Amino acid sequence: MKTSSFTTALFLFLLLAFWGCKQEQGANDSSASSGELKTDAYATDPLPSWNDGAHKSAIIKFVSDAINEGSTGFIPIQDRIATFDNDGTLWAEQPVYFQLLFVIDRIKEMADDHPEWKEQEPYRSILEGNYKNVEAQGLKAIAQLVMTTHAGTSPQEFRKIVQDWMSYATHPKTGKPFNQMTYQPMLELLEYLRAHDFKTFIVSGGGVEFLRAWAEVTYGIPPYQVVGSSIKTEWITDSNTVHINRLPELEFIDDKEGKPIGINRFIGKVPVFAAGNSDGDLQMLLYSDTKDPSMQLYLHHTDSIREWAYDKESHIGRLDKGLDEAARHGWLVIDMANDWNRVFPD
Amino acid sequence: MKTSSFTTALFLFLLLAFWGCKQEQGANDSSASSGELKTDAYATDPLPSWNDGAHKSAIIKFVSDAINEGSTGFIPIQDRIATFDNDGTLWAEQPVYFQLLFVIDRIKEMADDHPEWKEQEPYRSILEGNYKNVEAQGLKAIAQLVMTTHAGTSPQEFRKIVQDWMSYATHPKTGKPFNQMTYQPMLELLEYLRAHDFKTFIVSGGGVEFLRAWAEVTYGIPPYQVVGSSIKTEWITDSNTVHINRLPELEFIDDKEGKPIGINRFIGKVPVFAAGNSDGDLQMLLYSDTKDPSMQLYLHHTDSIREWAYDKESHIGRLDKGLDEAARHGWLVIDMANDWNRVFPD
Repeated sequence: MKTSSFTTALFLFLLLAFWGCKQEQGANDSSASSGELKTDAYATDPLPSWNDGAHKSAIIKFVSDAINEGSTGFIPIQDRIATFDNDGTLWAEQPVYFQLLFVIDRIKEMADDHPEWKEQEPYRSILEGNYKNVEAQGLKAIAQLVMTTHAGTSPQEFRKIVQDWMSYATHPKTGKPFNQMTYQPMLELLEYLRAHDFKTFIVSGGGVEFLRAWAEVTYGIPPYQVVGSSIKTEWITDSNTVHINRLPELEFIDDKEGKPIGINRFIGKVPVFAAGNSDGDLQMLLYSDTKDPSMQLYLHHTDSIREWAYDKESHIGRLDKGLDEAARHGWLVIDMANDWNRVFPD
Repeated sequence: MKTSSFTTALFLFLLLAFWGCKQEQGANDSSASSGELKTDAYATDPLPSWNDGAHKSAIIKFVSDAINEGSTGFIPIQDRIATFDNDGTLWAEQPVYFQLLFVIDRIKEMADDHPEWKEQEPYRSILEGNYKNVEAQGLKAIAQLVMTTHAGTSPQEFRKIVQDWMSYATHPKTGKPFNQMTYQPMLELLEYLRAHDFKTFIVSGGGVEFLRAWAEVTYGIPPYQVVGSSIKTEWITDSNTVHINRLPELEFIDDKEGKPIGINRFIGKVPVFAAGNSDGDLQMLLYSDTKDPSMQLYLHHTDSIREWAYDKESHIGRLDKGLDEAARHGWLVIDMANDWNRVFPD
């Protein structure tokens, strides 16, 4: 089972989650800054949460050229494919990937039906809130927690579980529901691209069914436009019905080189627009950059007041090599503190 | 390498292709019957190549109900997912799957760069047209031929090769280009569904990149709505560029239980409309039938004059258990001889 990169990542998130993370510098509500927006700007500006400047102008020029048949930047409708990372690009990813908080909450929920977990690791440590002890049990324990909470149901049942969680769970710092931890400027960008006949896809290292559970309502992105990491499934036939069952075995890790591989497998076109925020998105941006015309965009988390500030040294969403490559290739690097007048939706 | 079902199928097709197939009873051009169509019928009838009758009425009622919010058959737009098998459902599959003819032609093309093949099996037998001798070499030889012709290129390069082949290759019986061996009534059905906000997907046992090469132009179905069998890929980075390379190793067989598994993996919704023509489509139709309202449709190849007649005994596109299940579940079974007034486009 090729769990190494997935579980290494989860391991690090768990490690960081509950006993301190240097990058965690605050997450105050951004609504204070939304007062800067003028009503008439909303009516005419497709990207009202983006401050005027070179970056916003570059995005608008790219889209204006893409739809203008007379422009060298014209892109036929059938090639207008835009891919977005999710964690740290469409919604926040601090202090840990939100899917990990789902794992922990879900273990606690499932414990009612598993009294034996009180004496059984790694469940016992989760139930006791002793995350250091989970860490000490290593990667296998983390993988076990993920599989316990993600497998053994149909995709439809699993999505319902995630939706239920999303309806009550809140972010540990902001107290907001997770589907309000999305970035308002990126919601506007998704809508702006779609209004100009771009197809918007999520290409995320997160679990595909976890994403599909809420992406259609939250982002307007249907399940068949979500590419993510996945576990294997099996086809079950019994006398009266048929269904698909999720198995506790990794199938695909949609991160790093997995992103262009996943894009080819699921989308089958090279994206002309790609947005990410970490080194895990680098290969997706490089792949998109083989298209001309095309635009690549990195979000740089620079806003320690309204969100979080982190890049080269971060264990979550590390943006190190990607920053160098962005400079080399002339990609857009969005300075979230300066380029956005609002971070989260109201 | 799980090549068994894929190569078994290819083996049987090769076996049948060139030394006689009982099911092959003729493939005369169908254009003679198109004279039955009246011009004014075209203007008002969304399915002009379908004869009036219970089957056509059932399709029209299903779609009319699906878009009518007051109907118990109403289906919200976001759930209007329609999946179609390809071989034998959207285009013909006799005397052998057309992709196999591509393999043979491609070996002959590639032989110029491989003079050693004149002395090397299984290539030598292909080059000499001695298909019985290929058969004698077994499954491994067939798999070798498929991988030789399908791997070692980028997806974009491979599609270009298929497109070139499609521009000159012709069907061994009708002499038509293969993209004119599509079924006119099914092209109309695809368009009719799309006109009512259904998303149309191909879910085929054929190779996904082989399909993507021409499905967008021929069917109006973009690459991200094609689910098919696939080989593995790898991400290549060198100093100046990046690309995806196709590897000679099977990744996924999109047939039988692979169809619902592929539908869940790639589409993530249960189709409310599913069409096929063989037992290989049975699980897809059963999966679709778990939705209510929904419609399942089998094409029954009954037309030995205009196309081919085959079902329970056929080695290609066998429809045996599927016919029994169709009766049990009340699925639509299209009698191609009686339900269609035209088979192929002009």
